[in-house]
This record gives sequence, structure tokens and C-alpha cells, in this order.
Amino acid sequence: MNKRYLLTPGPTPVPEEVLLAMAKPIIHHRAADFIPLFEEVRKGLKWLYQTKEEVLIFASSGTGAMEAAVTNTLCKGDHALVVRGGKFGERWAEICKAYGVKTTNIDVTWGEAVDPNQIREALKRSPDIKAVFVQASETSTGASHPIKEISEITRNTDILLVVDAITALGVVDLPMDLWGLDVVVTGSQKALMLPPGLAFIALSEKAWKAAEKSDLPKFYFNVKKEKKNHLTNQTAYTPAVSLVIGLQKSLQMMQKEGLPAIFERHDKLARATRAGAQAIGLELYAPHSPSAAVTSVKSPAGLDAQEIVKRLKNHYHVTIAGGQGDAKGKIFRIAHLGYYDRFDIIVSLSALEMALNDLGFSVELGRAVAAAEAEFMTQPAMAKAAVA
Amino acid sequence: MNKRYLLTPGPTPVPEEVLLAMAKPIIHHRAADFIPLFEEVRKGLKWLYQTKEEVLIFASSGTGAMEAAVTNTLCKGDHALVVRGGKFGERWAEICKAYGVKTTNIDVTWGEAVDPNQIREALKRSPDIKAVFVQASETSTGASHPIKEISEITRNTDILLVVDAITALGVVDLPMDLWGLDVVVTGSQKALMLPPGLAFIALSEKAWKAAEKSDLPKFYFNVKKEKKNHLTNQTAYTPAVSLVIGLQKSLQMMQKEGLPAIFERHDKLARATRAGAQAIGLELYAPHSPSAAVTSVKSPAGLDAQEIVKRLKNHYHVTIAGGQGDAKGKIFRIAHLGYYDRFDIIVSLSALEMALNDLGFSVELGRAVAAAEAEFMTQPAMAKAAVA
Repeated sequence: MNKRYLLTPGPTPVPEEVLLAMAKPIIHHRAADFIPLFEEVRKGLKWLYQTKEEVLIFASSGTGAMEAAVTNTLCKGDHALVVRGGKFGERWAEICKAYGVKTTNIDVTWGEAVDPNQIREALKRSPDIKAVFVQASETSTGASHPIKEISEITRNTDILLVVDAITALGVVDLPMDLWGLDVVVTGSQKALMLPPGLAFIALSEKAWKAAEKSDLPKFYFNVKKEKKNHLTNQTAYTPAVSLVIGLQKSLQMMQKEGLPAIFERHDKLARATRAGAQAIGLELYAPHSPSAAVTSVKSPAGLDAQEIVKRLKNHYHVTIAGGQGDAKGKIFRIAHLGYYDRFDIIVSLSALEMALNDLGFSVELGRAVAAAEAEFMTQPAMAKAAVA
Repeated sequence: MNKRYLLTPGPTPVPEEVLLAMAKPIIHHRAADFIPLFEEVRKGLKWLYQTKEEVLIFASSGTGAMEAAVTNTLCKGDHALVVRGGKFGERWAEICKAYGVKTTNIDVTWGEAVDPNQIREALKRSPDIKAVFVQASETSTGASHPIKEISEITRNTDILLVVDAITALGVVDLPMDLWGLDVVVTGSQKALMLPPGLAFIALSEKAWKAAEKSDLPKFYFNVKKEKKNHLTNQTAYTPAVSLVIGLQKSLQMMQKEGLPAIFERHDKLARATRAGAQAIGLELYAPHSPSAAVTSVKSPAGLDAQEIVKRLKNHYHVTIAGGQGDAKGKIFRIAHLGYYDRFDIIVSLSALEMALNDLGFSVELGRAVAAAEAEFMTQPAMAKAAVA
């Protein structure tokens, strides 16, 4: 009998009560049952986004909402600035290219954060830039970009700030209205503790004005049409009903915990994970601006990171993520966004200690765990879990 | 205590064993667990589609796959022929318009089927037409279009036949390869007995060639990219994992029943529903070419069909669909595609008999039910249920 532990940056574990809510018989989305459910979910999403704007739900993966962010705010031939510091930054540029949007790319070393001055200078050099595309948390490298600082550059201008918050919303404080973020997208299988299949997008007043002018082709991912439907507690096309039912439950759990406790919990889990990895001599891949959603760790010299991932999976039933793209084989990533408490981190570090020894990289047993425990004990008020 | 009965043409009821399969802890789509699951599902979909081609899975509603059918096979300025015999025919034309595809529309009276000769003549008049877009079953009217006859017009030409089979696949025989259908799309919440959230599309060799040339913009709904991923048992973007797990189970159930029994069951359910409605003096909305997925019935003179829908819902806990667009208030629709057996039809007709009397439209109690029973008894070999 081996229990399984999932510590990947999406899908993340789904709480039992959410799974059971989704296992109830299906209801019809045009029938009266759906209206109060969707109304509650819309309110909960505004709370999560810290916005007065409508948060739109699409049946798609997060990439669908990224595409919507491009095709609904820009026009053919528009010029966009893209921060490329990992696989998901690259995706912004690819989507722009697919729709004929010209991009200037700021290439950031993987694992590092963008310097806001680079953005300021690029915008000065090209006054025709209409939008800045960036990740709040670059899932592929485990680095976070300084969204607040970037928002101070764009907020009193006509330039849109478009934020991929897929592994940041519900993890770190990202107050959309307060900071003046123009487009914020996220997905269900991250901090929202749901299976994949829902994507979310919210637009500021400035972004809605841009949406009025936008002439890029779109049909399924049409925010204007979707907003009109949402205001009557409907969706333009059949919603993923069972996932929306799960969302109602997960938002209830998150509201019970409260945003400050949620942010504190993620910060603590991330600090403990970093402390644990460093205590056994491992180097962080994103040491200067680490994401609170996922900790990326360099493999010891001479050891393929994929071997660690495989050993953890096959021998300890602990699923973590390897590196992507250029980082493949060099790093492994332990996720801690969503339905995680301190003992999930203890489990992953314990498994890591054993797996490294198995693979011939000798580390003192218990040392990573001890470092994490010490981190957890520095702030006894920490929320115990999402369900606390 | 009131049990609830769902008889809408999507969502359709989800079998308990599928609901429970989806309630299991989430697995990671890049991990080894997912590979055999996805491989089995790919095989099952080919069986269902009766094709050797890859059937691609998108996380979206069915409309997403309709959009993919347009944006992946055509080029800017191409000319398409669209059969518009209801809301979903109109959707084909709207998607084409959104992407700059010129359309010639054959407007068919709602409730009627297109005459294949109209298609033949339209193609003769406009030799530049690249594709014909049609519904196998027009869900909004309950009529079916003659796909086999239309395929005989297109199959030995360069013209693509694009079929919305969202409420037809797994309901009636629609052998993609045998008939030479070029693009076939469907959705999860129909005959596949799943919650909404997955869309499917398969392309013929001819359609794949068109996909090579297609220059319409696309990113999320990119069939070439998706096929490449499917061949390694992956998806380009995070799949809706829990729904794919449900799909494995529902395909297993369908394979156990077998395609001939599935088609016979739907035919029988549709015949019984029509017989029941007619036995109490109601007129069918699509009498000449009725869909086997959904039966649309005209409301008696002087009675708003929405009143029938409401009475059934609020007093009998039986959810059926009203009319859409121009047919709103004039018709109601009883669905019987997916997880239905004969007694679901008996329940809906029984509730209809009582509701009509409640609303002052006097019908003999038991008469619709008796007509349905007689229909069921004409062929004792009928499969009892999807799970039989």
C-alpha cells in the first residue's frame, strides 16, 4: 500500500469535498438550478481577483484565456512588449505571432526576474507599444516577475498590462484594481484546487475600451459576448458544469481561509521548501525572485534531474515536475500552490533526501526536513491548511 | 422526496460509475499514469468515429471544435457553403464570418432537412466553394440532415464535407471513413454521457491536406499541433484530466453495448417519444427527418411551450428544453441521447400527460405512455440500456 503525493504546478491536488461535489448528478446550465450557483461563483471570483470587474469563465485550459487576452484587446499589426523569461513568456510571443501582432521581446535569463527598467526603456524606445505581456509567476522556471513595479509604469498610460497569473492568483497578493492590472488570466488546476478545464480572465475599464476597438478574429474566446452572458448568469457556450460546481466549493473553502491566510500559507510553504533544499547543499534555480507557487532546484552536478523525478515517482510515489525546454534535466520543481499544508512539504523533502541517497548523491537524512520544520516554527500563527 | 430527471439535449445524464471515476484523486497528465489512459481513450474514439484517423480532444465546449473545423481547413477569403436550418447552422456561418471566410448559405425552413440537390446546385453555381458545413442533427430543431447523400456529392471532389455531429455521433450510424466525411466534430455532454468540457474533432486525409495549407489564425485550437501531441499520448495544453478519466469509463460502457445496439436503442427511444407525443394529438416540429437524439414537439395552439417546460420542471422535476431563437415558445424538446433507456421516455411522457392537463389542455391520461410502450414492444430484442 503506497499513498500517492502530487506536487506538480498543475494539476494540483483536489480536496475530497470538491471531488464529491463534482460527482453529484449533472444539472442543466440553462435551468434555474444553475443561476444561484453561477451568481455565487461570479462573486467569489471577484473576491479572489480583488476586482469590481466581471471575471469571465471559459471551458478551456489556461492557454485559452491567454489567447483571449491577445485577441480581444489588440488590433492587427499592433505592437506588443513581451517579457520572455521562460516557456510561458515564450507562449505570449507565440500567440501574438499567430494573430499578426508584432512583438518586441525582453529576453530574461531563465530563473531571473525582469528588471522593470528594461520595460520602462523599451516603452520609451517604442511609443507605439499597446500592451505589455508578462507572467506574475513563470511556472517553468519558478521565478516571479515584479508585477507591482511594472504596473506603476503602465497604469497612468494607455498601455495595457496583461498578466498571466495562472500560478500566482490565490498564491500571492495581486490586487487587480488596486494595482491597475489591465488583464489578469488564471486557470482552474492551480490555486483554485480544481481539475484542469476552466480558464479565467478579467479586464480593467481600460482593457474593456481596448476590447471595443479590437479587430483580431475570435469566436469561442470572445470576451464581449461572454460578459454579456455572464451578466445574466449564463455563458455563451455550454459551460463545463461539473467544474463550475467544484469551483463553488473551492471558492467557499478559500473564502473561509481568507486571502491574507492563503498568501501567508503559500509564502511559508515556499520558504520551507527553499530552506530544505538549501540545507542539503542544493542550489535554487530562481534564488533572487522565487515564486511562492513552485520551487525550482538545480540538480547536483553530474546527476540528471529527470533521474530524481523518476526515482521520486517510481520508488516513493511522489510526483514532482522536471524542467521544461532549456532547463530539462537541469532542474526539478516542487509545487506548493493550492491544496497544500506544511506536511506535504515535509513529505516531499523526506522523499528527496532518500531519493538523492539512492542515486548516489549522499545527503544527511533528516536535514532538509529539519530546516523546513525550523522555518515552519518561526511563525506559529501560520494557517494549518486550506481547510483550517 | 422528488427525484430529478434530466432530458435535455446536453448536458445529458452522467452514469454513476462515470461520476465516481471522475471523483478519484487527480493525476498528472505528463506522468506515466496518463499514457495508457490516453492511449485507450484514443483507440476508443477511433472506434466511435469509425475512422483510422486520429480523433483530437480539446478542453472546450463543442463550439471550440466547430471553430477548429473552420480555422484549420480554410484560408482567408475562401468560399464555404453553409446549411442553415437552425441555431447551429447559423453558428457555422457566424464562425466563418468571424474569420473572414465568405459563405453562401442555404436557408432551410426550421424543422426541415436540407435537400441534397440544393447543395449539388449551389456547388455547380460556385465552383470556388472549398467546403460544405452542415449538422448531422440540428439540435435546435430536432431535424437531421441527410449526411450520407451529401457525402456522395462531395467525396470524389476536392470539396470538404464538415459535419457537426455533436448530437449525432454515438446516436446514429455515421461511419466517417466509409462515407468519406472530411471533418467530424462532437462534444462530451451528449452521447458520450459525460459532463460538458471536452470537444472532439477528426479530419480525413483530404482535410489534413487542407490543414497543411490553411492560413487562418489559430493558437489554442490548432489541429496540427494537437495531432503531434496526441501521437505521443499527450495534449498541447493541459487536458481536462478528470473528464478524460470519465471518457475512458464511458467509452468502455459504449464498447460493451456495441455500436449497432447503441444506434438501435436511440432509434427506438426516438420512435417511442414521437409515437407518444402524436398519440395525445401533438404535432412534431420535424416530422419528415426527425433526429434520433431529440424530439421536438409543437405546443398545442394557445399554449406557450415555455409554460410546459416550466410546469414539468417545477412540478414534476423533469427538465426538458424549450425552443431556441425563432422556435422559442412554439416548441419543446425531449432529448434521448446518451444515458437513456425506455423508462426515461415513459417518465417524460407521463409527466407531459399530467402537465398538459394541469395547464388546461385536456389529454387522456396514459395514452402517450401506451403508445410508447407499444412501440417498445414491437422489437423485444432492444438493448435495455447503455449499461446492459
